[in-house]
Amino acid sequence: VGDPQDTDWKIRSERALYTDRWLTINVADVELPDGRHLDHRLIHMRPSAGAVMLNVDRTHVLLMWRHRFITDSRGWEIPMGALDRGEDAAEAALREAVEETGWRPANLTHLVTLHPSGGILDSTHHLFLSAGADQVGPPQDSFESDRVEWIPLADLVAIIDKGHITSGSTLTGLLYLLATQPPL
Amino acid sequence: VGDPQDTDWKIRSERALYTDRWLTINVADVELPDGRHLDHRLIHMRPSAGAVMLNVDRTHVLLMWRHRFITDSRGWEIPMGALDRGEDAAEAALREAVEETGWRPANLTHLVTLHPSGGILDSTHHLFLSAGADQVGPPQDSFESDRVEWIPLADLVAIIDKGHITSGSTLTGLLYLLATQPPL
Repeated sequence: VGDPQDTDWKIRSERALYTDRWLTINVADVELPDGRHLDHRLIHMRPSAGAVMLNVDRTHVLLMWRHRFITDSRGWEIPMGALDRGEDAAEAALREAVEETGWRPANLTHLVTLHPSGGILDSTHHLFLSAGADQVGPPQDSFESDRVEWIPLADLVAIIDKGHITSGSTLTGLLYLLATQPPL
Repeated sequence: VGDPQDTDWKIRSERALYTDRWLTINVADVELPDGRHLDHRLIHMRPSAGAVMLNVDRTHVLLMWRHRFITDSRGWEIPMGALDRGEDAAEAALREAVEETGWRPANLTHLVTLHPSGGILDSTHHLFLSAGADQVGPPQDSFESDRVEWIPLADLVAIIDKGHITSGSTLTGLLYLLATQPPL
């Protein structure tokens, strides 16, 4: 399944275009299956990790209401962020949960891994599930969200249908949970 | 819910960095809630539309097996692509379905709309659902995928757990379907 194919596009070289704290943009020379070449930009990012945090009774999930200025949209999101150097994905999910929500998940098990925009970015998002959390303080970065709330799992589909959850990775994590462990 | 907040980041100006057929990258002067300014890149893309296509019995979904060279990963995806000028989202989903799979969906109803990477891109993905499809020819662009198959809905979670579906938008569409209309 994972073997290279004659239909693969192949990256032959890259030159730097832009870099900042979060990403690097290169322009690549890409070879197509028929031997033609084209320039294609590549956006490189570190992997990220996020946490779908349930209460111990598995009836509610901890979500953050936030504005995204790039899409100029507002919605509920799970805590998520990039892995620090030397961190594994579960460590990053735990750290981001505490920093962004003030709640520490009691445990984390792998839920699902995704590529949010595989045609544009090489970013990989590792999502984890926890049941049970302890409030250890206020969120550390007040810019991250307007408020943090425990939302009933039974309300999630209605909230999605109102357009109040649009983050692709948050949707993937919550819907994976609902599809595999329907609320009681 | 949709009103501007004092916690919003605001875009004050943008300058062009890069553009190609699919996206435009600008660097913006962004004002933070405390009045500080920072440079932040903005990646602008047209909206896209995709189709979760079921057979008329709603037991199988039409998926494309494809390689993504940017993530160097292989997996099943729904047909999806950018809106052409003047097209609405449902028209684009229909056109992309026919071009990429060779199957024409009998009908399309809105399923869910998402931002695949709201911290990086302004891209919006509109996903539609159909039940019933007619094969109208071969896929028009042979570079898009290695093969197109009808996959049992009952197998999707196992396929996801094997890591064979990683596209965030494909996961969102399929998991929304499974969460709201569980397979019989």
